[in-house]
Amino acid sequence: MSSQLTLALDLPEVPAIDDAALDASLRHAIDHKTKPLGALGRLESLAVQIGRVLGSERPVLQQPQALVLAADHGLARRGVSAYPQVVTWQMVANFLSGGAAVSVLARQHGLALTVVDAGVARELEPAPGLWIRKIAPGTADATEQPAMSLEQCGQALRTGIDLVSELPGNAILLGEMGIGNTSSASLLMSRLTGLPLALCVGRGTGLDDAGLQRKLAVLEQASERHARVTDPLDVLAALGGFEIAMMVGVVIEAARQRRLIVVDGFITSAAVLVAHALRPAVLERCVFAHQSDESGHARLLAHLGVQPLLHLGLRLGEGSGAALAWPLIASAARLLTDMASFASAGVSGPEPA
Amino acid sequence: MSSQLTLALDLPEVPAIDDAALDASLRHAIDHKTKPLGALGRLESLAVQIGRVLGSERPVLQQPQALVLAADHGLARRGVSAYPQVVTWQMVANFLSGGAAVSVLARQHGLALTVVDAGVARELEPAPGLWIRKIAPGTADATEQPAMSLEQCGQALRTGIDLVSELPGNAILLGEMGIGNTSSASLLMSRLTGLPLALCVGRGTGLDDAGLQRKLAVLEQASERHARVTDPLDVLAALGGFEIAMMVGVVIEAARQRRLIVVDGFITSAAVLVAHALRPAVLERCVFAHQSDESGHARLLAHLGVQPLLHLGLRLGEGSGAALAWPLIASAARLLTDMASFASAGVSGPEPA
Repeated sequence: MSSQLTLALDLPEVPAIDDAALDASLRHAIDHKTKPLGALGRLESLAVQIGRVLGSERPVLQQPQALVLAADHGLARRGVSAYPQVVTWQMVANFLSGGAAVSVLARQHGLALTVVDAGVARELEPAPGLWIRKIAPGTADATEQPAMSLEQCGQALRTGIDLVSELPGNAILLGEMGIGNTSSASLLMSRLTGLPLALCVGRGTGLDDAGLQRKLAVLEQASERHARVTDPLDVLAALGGFEIAMMVGVVIEAARQRRLIVVDGFITSAAVLVAHALRPAVLERCVFAHQSDESGHARLLAHLGVQPLLHLGLRLGEGSGAALAWPLIASAARLLTDMASFASAGVSGPEPA
Repeated sequence: MSSQLTLALDLPEVPAIDDAALDASLRHAIDHKTKPLGALGRLESLAVQIGRVLGSERPVLQQPQALVLAADHGLARRGVSAYPQVVTWQMVANFLSGGAAVSVLARQHGLALTVVDAGVARELEPAPGLWIRKIAPGTADATEQPAMSLEQCGQALRTGIDLVSELPGNAILLGEMGIGNTSSASLLMSRLTGLPLALCVGRGTGLDDAGLQRKLAVLEQASERHARVTDPLDVLAALGGFEIAMMVGVVIEAARQRRLIVVDGFITSAAVLVAHALRPAVLERCVFAHQSDESGHARLLAHLGVQPLLHLGLRLGEGSGAALAWPLIASAARLLTDMASFASAGVSGPEPA
């Protein structure tokens, strides 16, 4: 308990954003743009959120950073994924050589792309754009023991916290890679939401029905093994992955620094769920890029009470959904700062009823 | 009948795209990218569609053109809109001076923006980016007579057809402006789909309940007045607007030239509905950018059997939704051309079951 307490105390505080005057002036600005009231739909609340997070009536998003955290999972040895574990490092190489979806999208949108080795089960060669912050070469098998020790969990959190200040700009797009990590995310979701595992488990990269049943059985076993663990940090250590723990650190510190956090899919959302359990005010700094096709994600978003931007049936991870949503987020900010008002453009308002 | 027949014969033919080899090779390319099968969701069918329309296994979208057609409506005098008719030309000025939503979004995404005066009820000063193609200063009141004559309708269609070749590139994003034009779109929708008017009519720029009832009553009257009109060109002349008729011409000719057509919201979709009634194969060249919050749009999209990209509760028109969706469309094409395949990246495929 004492090491866990130290961990908890070591986490930065994240105060709620409380600036009614700013909120009111953002709402006023949006409502007086040259468009019918509410006509920009979801982008209006998004624009207000961006202004709140960046603490500005005229928020300007700067140097957006796509951060993809990669690690391996002990559970992968239990046949929970359609793909072999080597795909984790192979995809890291693909991110770096520019051939992955997130690489293509980052180039399209001018996002700086950094890949972090949080715990890939292979020694990676140094390369531009790769930051090696390996906690260990993959987690342990959570059906047998905690996926990581509390010390490792603390190290991953601290590393995530430190990563934020190494990145410029005021927006971070989070993504991940790790064969087996939908399993870890499902376990975290079930334990922290109280929902039965069956509602949290999906096909990941494409399991068939038999594969899905096998995965569920393995996860039931892991969940049983750590049945009495309920404290969020203990849960993270018992069931999480290194990339997920590191994302929790990134989310908490980025929130503290009032950077905008763009959340990708199921696994990234699970990291936010953990961060939210530790520091609830992280949530208002998060934009949920999309609702993925991975079973469980819709429920996880509903549990958090958040509304995703895109519904495109994506289920790729690696930050691809966050990158796809980026232009919408940038649009929301630009509409707030660059659109004319009825007064400035000399456009008539609605007729009196 | 003879003038109408001449009109119909004058319209370009639009053959269905029929290239099974291209379809197969596009599907093969998508399926072998470094991602689980189907993991890019809706973007995969979009990528295939773009390849089909542009007739290329490696489609490259070039010089996308945002084309906003503006005109006034006789029905506006009947109190069908929350805003006065002057807003049409005031917003044209706002588009041109860069303060409207579509102006901001076009700048953000590098879209060339052209505004066409298809029939604004005011003499507009020449300005860069404004093409004056006025058929007349607003349509007639459709509760009293056809909104336009068949000659005017033919002129609007022909003008739309000619506009396409004046624009470079292989993609056109369509938008519109015209106080009262949700009324015209609702009338066209009801007549061409057979759905009752009440299911096709919405609040437009923001009518309250009483305003909505008044609008519905006026539209019932207009619909009654032209109850026996069923031929698509007659319907367009009786109930359409000049900007809508011109869009029908643009859609047909852009489809013939195999340009990608990005459809904005309710009014633009109504123009596609008319174009589809005349030349069914236009539909496969259209990408529906979003499902708007305007009541009736969801039903219109369902009637056409198409799936919009965005669900953001937008109801602004002016091509803003098309511009917002543009980066997703560009992403789909880039993912097709720029992503590595499993073979080229040396990434392992799924494990045998």
